[in-house]
Amino acid sequence: MQTANSAEEEIFRVRKLEIADKNKGFIELLQQLTVCDSVSDERFQERFQELAKYGDDHLVCVIEDDKSGKIVATGSVFIEKKFIRNCGKVGHIEDVVVDSSVRGKQLGKKIVEFLADHARLTGCYKVILDCSTDNIPFYERCGFKQKEVQMVKYFI
Amino acid sequence: MQTANSAEEEIFRVRKLEIADKNKGFIELLQQLTVCDSVSDERFQERFQELAKYGDDHLVCVIEDDKSGKIVATGSVFIEKKFIRNCGKVGHIEDVVVDSSVRGKQLGKKIVEFLADHARLTGCYKVILDCSTDNIPFYERCGFKQKEVQMVKYFI
Repeated sequence: MQTANSAEEEIFRVRKLEIADKNKGFIELLQQLTVCDSVSDERFQERFQELAKYGDDHLVCVIEDDKSGKIVATGSVFIEKKFIRNCGKVGHIEDVVVDSSVRGKQLGKKIVEFLADHARLTGCYKVILDCSTDNIPFYERCGFKQKEVQMVKYFI
Repeated sequence: MQTANSAEEEIFRVRKLEIADKNKGFIELLQQLTVCDSVSDERFQERFQELAKYGDDHLVCVIEDDKSGKIVATGSVFIEKKFIRNCGKVGHIEDVVVDSSVRGKQLGKKIVEFLADHARLTGCYKVILDCSTDNIPFYERCGFKQKEVQMVKYFI
């Protein structure tokens, strides 16, 4: 007998980004996060291939809503190779967003756990991210702790 | 006629990391930053080559003190490729450290400016870094502004 929870697991599965996701609302989803102009198919494919070259060192994951066929959550992680920590590696999580229509279903937590697991399995000693103060409680629920301060310099 | 400043420029020139820098105190310098066990020549070269494959997308720079032949400052930047911001790019500055014996000579500022310039010239729309609250004034002097909060999850 299936519980309501396991039925939901089937619908909201995390998987890697595919080229076809551009036509399933991937860019529109990113527009909920920040400035993200519409991108041509050619430009999207070019960037997709650039990232594919990094293999496991750059992962973009998504959740597709099986009912609507729309991408409803995404996030990315890339693996930085260092000399410190005995030539250690660090995962950097970026661009996590959940569609406003499906918030409250723990999809953000699923995305972050998927990305953190990827960092751990590729041998990272830690995974980091930057967030607004409003999002600190969410990331604490995902097992993160507040550490440093992010500084930024814009060129445009 | 040369000023004292331009003479100093010649001594403290920023350049890319070279394999030979391992024997000029590069690892010992990183040990002033954080945990950094001694690294075998083989492991160092392996990591060096891994980073070289990224080309301009991962730069480690150093300052060698021409008098002592020692590496006295270093920092790195890697270029993250995104879908947001019209498939934009972001520079991430990491592992900036200046030897305790040469502090006060603005070498940290030189390193950070070199890395930020690299990010700008490779087409990044911004450059970011994480630092302790103690280092906020230093990065403000380098033209950075405080923005978000860094969150971390350790695996070991």
